[in-house]
Amino acid sequence: MSYRCEQLQEEKVFKDPVHRYIHVRYRVIWDLIGTKEFQRLRRIKQLGTSYLTFHGAEHSRFNHSLGVYELVRRITENFTGRKEWSEDQRLLALTASLLHDLGHGPFSHSFEKVFDLDHEQFTQAIILGDTEVHHVLKKVSDTFPEQVAAVINKTHEDQLVVSLISSQIDADRMDYLLRDAYFTGVSYGQFDLERLLRVMRPKKDQVVIKQTGMHAVEDYILSRYQMHWQVYFHPVSRSAEVLLSRILHRVKELYQAGYQFRQTPDHFLSFFKGDVSLEDYIRLDETIVMYYFQQWKEETDYILHDLCDRFVNRKLFKFVSHHTDFEAKDWQTLYQAFEAVGLDPTYYLVEDSTSDLPYDFYRPGESNERVPIYLLTPEDELVELSRLSTIVDAISGKTRSDHKLFYPRDEIEKLTPSKEKDAIVTLLKLNQR
Amino acid sequence: MSYRCEQLQEEKVFKDPVHRYIHVRYRVIWDLIGTKEFQRLRRIKQLGTSYLTFHGAEHSRFNHSLGVYELVRRITENFTGRKEWSEDQRLLALTASLLHDLGHGPFSHSFEKVFDLDHEQFTQAIILGDTEVHHVLKKVSDTFPEQVAAVINKTHEDQLVVSLISSQIDADRMDYLLRDAYFTGVSYGQFDLERLLRVMRPKKDQVVIKQTGMHAVEDYILSRYQMHWQVYFHPVSRSAEVLLSRILHRVKELYQAGYQFRQTPDHFLSFFKGDVSLEDYIRLDETIVMYYFQQWKEETDYILHDLCDRFVNRKLFKFVSHHTDFEAKDWQTLYQAFEAVGLDPTYYLVEDSTSDLPYDFYRPGESNERVPIYLLTPEDELVELSRLSTIVDAISGKTRSDHKLFYPRDEIEKLTPSKEKDAIVTLLKLNQR
Amino acid sequence: MSYRCEQLQEEKVFKDPVHRYIHVRYRVIWDLIGTKEFQRLRRIKQLGTSYLTFHGAEHSRFNHSLGVYELVRRITENFTGRKEWSEDQRLLALTASLLHDLGHGPFSHSFEKVFDLDHEQFTQAIILGDTEVHHVLKKVSDTFPEQVAAVINKTHEDQLVVSLISSQIDADRMDYLLRDAYFTGVSYGQFDLERLLRVMRPKKDQVVIKQTGMHAVEDYILSRYQMHWQVYFHPVSRSAEVLLSRILHRVKELYQAGYQFRQTPDHFLSFFKGDVSLEDYIRLDETIVMYYFQQWKEETDYILHDLCDRFVNRKLFKFVSHHTDFEAKDWQTLYQAFEAVGLDPTYYLVEDSTSDLPYDFYRPGESNERVPIYLLTPEDELVELSRLSTIVDAISGKTRSDHKLFYPRDEIEKLTPSKEKDAIVTLLKLNQR
Amino acid sequence: MSYRCEQLQEEKVFKDPVHRYIHVRYRVIWDLIGTKEFQRLRRIKQLGTSYLTFHGAEHSRFNHSLGVYELVRRITENFTGRKEWSEDQRLLALTASLLHDLGHGPFSHSFEKVFDLDHEQFTQAIILGDTEVHHVLKKVSDTFPEQVAAVINKTHEDQLVVSLISSQIDADRMDYLLRDAYFTGVSYGQFDLERLLRVMRPKKDQVVIKQTGMHAVEDYILSRYQMHWQVYFHPVSRSAEVLLSRILHRVKELYQAGYQFRQTPDHFLSFFKGDVSLEDYIRLDETIVMYYFQQWKEETDYILHDLCDRFVNRKLFKFVSHHTDFEAKDWQTLYQAFEAVGLDPTYYLVEDSTSDLPYDFYRPGESNERVPIYLLTPEDELVELSRLSTIVDAISGKTRSDHKLFYPRDEIEKLTPSKEKDAIVTLLKLNQR
Repeated sequence: MSYRCEQLQEEKVFKDPVHRYIHVRYRVIWDLIGTKEFQRLRRIKQLGTSYLTFHGAEHSRFNHSLGVYELVRRITENFTGRKEWSEDQRLLALTASLLHDLGHGPFSHSFEKVFDLDHEQFTQAIILGDTEVHHVLKKVSDTFPEQVAAVINKTHEDQLVVSLISSQIDADRMDYLLRDAYFTGVSYGQFDLERLLRVMRPKKDQVVIKQTGMHAVEDYILSRYQMHWQVYFHPVSRSAEVLLSRILHRVKELYQAGYQFRQTPDHFLSFFKGDVSLEDYIRLDETIVMYYFQQWKEETDYILHDLCDRFVNRKLFKFVSHHTDFEAKDWQTLYQAFEAVGLDPTYYLVEDSTSDLPYDFYRPGESNERVPIYLLTPEDELVELSRLSTIVDAISGKTRSDHKLFYPRDEIEKLTPSKEKDAIVTLLKLNQR
Repeated sequence: MSYRCEQLQEEKVFKDPVHRYIHVRYRVIWDLIGTKEFQRLRRIKQLGTSYLTFHGAEHSRFNHSLGVYELVRRITENFTGRKEWSEDQRLLALTASLLHDLGHGPFSHSFEKVFDLDHEQFTQAIILGDTEVHHVLKKVSDTFPEQVAAVINKTHEDQLVVSLISSQIDADRMDYLLRDAYFTGVSYGQFDLERLLRVMRPKKDQVVIKQTGMHAVEDYILSRYQMHWQVYFHPVSRSAEVLLSRILHRVKELYQAGYQFRQTPDHFLSFFKGDVSLEDYIRLDETIVMYYFQQWKEETDYILHDLCDRFVNRKLFKFVSHHTDFEAKDWQTLYQAFEAVGLDPTYYLVEDSTSDLPYDFYRPGESNERVPIYLLTPEDELVELSRLSTIVDAISGKTRSDHKLFYPRDEIEKLTPSKEKDAIVTLLKLNQR
Repeated sequence: MSYRCEQLQEEKVFKDPVHRYIHVRYRVIWDLIGTKEFQRLRRIKQLGTSYLTFHGAEHSRFNHSLGVYELVRRITENFTGRKEWSEDQRLLALTASLLHDLGHGPFSHSFEKVFDLDHEQFTQAIILGDTEVHHVLKKVSDTFPEQVAAVINKTHEDQLVVSLISSQIDADRMDYLLRDAYFTGVSYGQFDLERLLRVMRPKKDQVVIKQTGMHAVEDYILSRYQMHWQVYFHPVSRSAEVLLSRILHRVKELYQAGYQFRQTPDHFLSFFKGDVSLEDYIRLDETIVMYYFQQWKEETDYILHDLCDRFVNRKLFKFVSHHTDFEAKDWQTLYQAFEAVGLDPTYYLVEDSTSDLPYDFYRPGESNERVPIYLLTPEDELVELSRLSTIVDAISGKTRSDHKLFYPRDEIEKLTPSKEKDAIVTLLKLNQR
Repeated sequence: MSYRCEQLQEEKVFKDPVHRYIHVRYRVIWDLIGTKEFQRLRRIKQLGTSYLTFHGAEHSRFNHSLGVYELVRRITENFTGRKEWSEDQRLLALTASLLHDLGHGPFSHSFEKVFDLDHEQFTQAIILGDTEVHHVLKKVSDTFPEQVAAVINKTHEDQLVVSLISSQIDADRMDYLLRDAYFTGVSYGQFDLERLLRVMRPKKDQVVIKQTGMHAVEDYILSRYQMHWQVYFHPVSRSAEVLLSRILHRVKELYQAGYQFRQTPDHFLSFFKGDVSLEDYIRLDETIVMYYFQQWKEETDYILHDLCDRFVNRKLFKFVSHHTDFEAKDWQTLYQAFEAVGLDPTYYLVEDSTSDLPYDFYRPGESNERVPIYLLTPEDELVELSRLSTIVDAISGKTRSDHKLFYPRDEIEKLTPSKEKDAIVTLLKLNQR
């Protein structure tokens, strides 16, 4: 039997708290899970710094990747036998779903920003480079690695397969909402998964939803909305994220200025130089980063020491809402006051903004990659979701934003009285409550 | 107001997936959670290597410690107003429950064995030494640190408080069964917590259970039994544990033999020397250990390299049941065959045994520290559980054991044919299935 | 000790699948639960005909009444100690919450419409009349029955107590959403109850919500919206409801026309005469109604027989969406065609409409009894929910309606071909799908 | 296409709180659910009088029957493709599982005892008689009704199919444990259903369990044990059951003595005469019985009136444990005292016993229909469960019993002082607590 179609002698399962069991029948899936690049995902948290807000959120991307695979398995199980769908498509979809997050590094968001990286590029590189993953994929067929990479990159011509892991209602989002809700313990991420799975249909170039399942889709979109504001954009997690990016910024700056580290940061050198090899990228995981943070906590540079100490021991910055109309003059006063009291504003007065678009329909003429969700009517027509759903219509296209200013309250409180301190206290409203 | 009684202006909560919310009112509890020694528990997994079997089991001891605290809070809330119980006892119990695991190191079990350490001693040391935790406790009263340490050490004269966290049905066990079941996703750890909390009563020197709650206790004991065999003693986790202890053993051996490491293992030196300071102990957490394992994967010593590679990339040993009657002659043959084919049996042929006593009653005349569970009858008498429960009687005092032999099947399969290989294959039953 | 303050020797609990346990400490609550008027609620389903759509929805109003009581107990437990709140208010709130549905009859909605009744009037009558409930309440104080009645009637001067069971976010709604979701098995009714309970605050004349809990309120409102359309207005349940009201209509019509029933419908006579005594009302429950339906199934009047047979054996009418613009001409054609083929349109061609207003704010100048939900800001100000919540703003004040036409498809299909049948088939779109 | 194999155009589902969804594909299953004999199960509670103890337990046998069907559907889905298993067997198993409880009457246990009936006989009669169910089955094949009846009757030669619904670990028991736990709200009925389903294997004449699933079986057996004592044999439910059987006994006695009822109990006449027709049996459901109880509450016979009033308004008898060694002399004293104070001991002093055998293995030479559970070892051998499971071995074959004496405490308390009252109070220990 060819490797492509090879099935395990007996189905293997992983116990999973969200989907009960993850079922594996294809040997290629089993072998991929065993590769070192996939196992590495165990050392990268799914929700980055959120565990500092929600202590249950310590789950890894390994966890989530298996979940997305399982959802695609269940969705496509229902597709079997339909003319729109073949076994080749299924294997491609299963593989791509398993590997879609392969290129994520530790605390991706901050790393990408500070070192100008793109985790999607590294996913491609791992699939196409000289890796264990690549060699397993190659055994399926010569072109299989490219195909899988193209699906994850959304450039594959089979947009139906692409839509399973990259659309406004894909297996990726469905798994992370349920999983993140489970591990954080919040109730907001719940929606009727069983129902959704039952009403998904393959249709030309995307997965569509039978109209009878409209309320399940509404529920899913509202869950997404709630999870964004309750979990993903939680200001405490963002505060930790701010520390993280300031640490990386500082250490890069120190390196470029020729600072002598007590221990050479070998794992970071190519990041500092802006020339990261695949090998270097792969060997950097969260245990390595945390090792360095603990080492840097002992460095003589005060700012690096302080920021690392704060991150490791969770002594986070506090925040105030920073309305966009914060007057330029006040901002300048604040900035100068921080400088005057010896708190470098680059590191100790940090703005952070975030925004979310709960659901977007397609606006002709606009460039917008968010393909809308289509409902399949009993008459076999496709209608865009917000045209039938009052509630989705009400929120679609409406961006919601949040701006905050992060700073070390403990340091401000320790300051001896001065007019700068007064200015800070007044502008950051520290005297209230 | 004295620090002892100080309450937070407004109750603080942590979202918890197991108990929904953890509620904090005392300032001392809040301050303890913020110490670096307590935050360190975030970097130590509750279930050691179990995440390699149950991918959901990535939760930390930080997680569990908050849970034990919350259970003691709820149990003692019901005690309030009873003559047997004072607010002083409550604060002591809450603090001890929060801190009871403070001295756990990374992968405690293996570390303790290889380096001859005792995590309970370190818990004592952290509470009594020059630490942030100690300074917070001291603010309550001069003797408070000693009192807390004594409760955790089970030597405190108030055995009622001790029994809340150290008995056959204490908050520690109740939390870990529920929590480990939640994160692994198995259903075995469930029992009727609400009911148990309602029927617990303070009685002289221990917590007892109203007889009407007997079935809830039975259910709890059976859960414990099932969790031990389904989760805690799972052979795949034990296989990872075997690798871990072999790595530590190897690296210590190499160090003592004067091996030159590429990077001096600073964090381990005092462990190798058998003279671990509190500071050294505290700074060793699982992120540090995983950093070293990844470094040692690159060492020239083949065994160290191989074992670390196996652990990091989850290429575990396989196992056979090793019945106690494995004949001495066969064992010798096997041992010699491993040596002959170049697999050092010290590292590649490892025995591991485990056993569990589901419930134990007190046998007069025997030294046995497992205090039995007492039921409180409607007539206000105490009767030992197994005297009233058929099912507990049926299993009490019965030890169950499991012996296994771990080895690298992949290496055996790669061997060129030889009579040693044949012997190994036959004795390890590798030709079957 | 006065009866008013009398506590049970030991707290009693009821096992409840939604709230885990219902806790009772006051003797008056315990005694009320034991009255025959309260026990009668066991014989009235919480969701009327919904069990014919969702087979799990067989739970009674007894079930729900205990749940509302428990929620008020938990909400007001958090109020204890606040200056805005007294123990007298608590007892009043607990009692009113327990009894708020006391006057519900079997399948209330249809009965009220056909016989021009009002269950709220009967709740008042039971509380104030010569009943077991009344005598228990009287033992608290002479005016206690009137007070409880006034709270349920929303006329009590203590609008804070009133708001606990009659507002847009009261214990009644919170319990039924969770409970109905639990028993039907749908996931839509879930929201973060624990969080809501923690953020409810007594404030002058109503319960308000701390702003930090805004997302929990949003979640609750969206749950309500989903439950309305997924469960409460499900067309299959409405189809059963249509049968029910047609049966009652027919039997009343027959009675008024002097029809001779095989067994005199004693329990219904005063309903037919429009002069229902309290005693008659109370003795009519769903087991009595179902007895009669089964008896009437054997009557010689074909329509009564047929409708009862349909209801008892669940042979329901089918439906088409009946857009408001169904042209008058078509409607006349349809009506006449039904008459022509011998299907009395009064009974076999039934319109039913329903509509829902997910959330309503207060519009000055309009008469509108729906008091809006207020959020309490950190600055201790009250702000109406939709002013802060994008999502609630998006849906507030927007009525959604649904019009359907119910008819017996089986009868139409059995008709011999004729131009009337053709007309019916065409207008009801029976030839499609 | 023949009716036998006819599939619905699109799979139909029922929302189910326990199994999420019940899936129906075969037309015959769909048609059977629509028959009036099956719909009648909606009017019979699954747990008889248990709703008077656990208010959530209001679910019907309709509910459970769908659940058993769904479990057999899922178990046999895994069998598909195995040589031991055919589609014909599957249809037979699905049908038998759906209909296995068809002959249950209202409050079966008491009715069977008082009127000497057997619900299994009526199940047979409904399947084989002139019923809607029979006519649907007949359309599959002439012998299909007999086959289905034989499976339910355990006499079918295909014992593998029989074992799916009648063994110590069948779909019937699995569904009711989970379902009754869900509706009562207790946690005891939980076990790892998913795991069990995965390890069940068809093997000659019974379903066996792969040895790797042994712990899941243990968990199931322990759940069964706990549910028996916590729910099924709960003394409060038994107290209601006692009332029920006393009512039936009294009404039969009155009828036989020529008592003139205010309304002739038409539905009961053939029961009194001991000659129950199928038609009479079917039309008796719990709504009818409750109608009569409420009518009889108004009868002039005091005992009938009183017992019905007690049942309808839940004024239950209290109980004392009645150890088997209750001395004959005391019993006689008690009996005579009841007579002396005017409480007919036949109705007001009722013994009730119950016992349970948690698990039984096969003892050669004994007549015992409880087929043991077999585990399938990796070597493909069958080993009886208790030989491998310590915990099952510990409890197997051990019968546990409970004897209680039920009586109206309210009546005793109302008695004027007398030596008989004293005797009663002493013997029933009414002066204690």
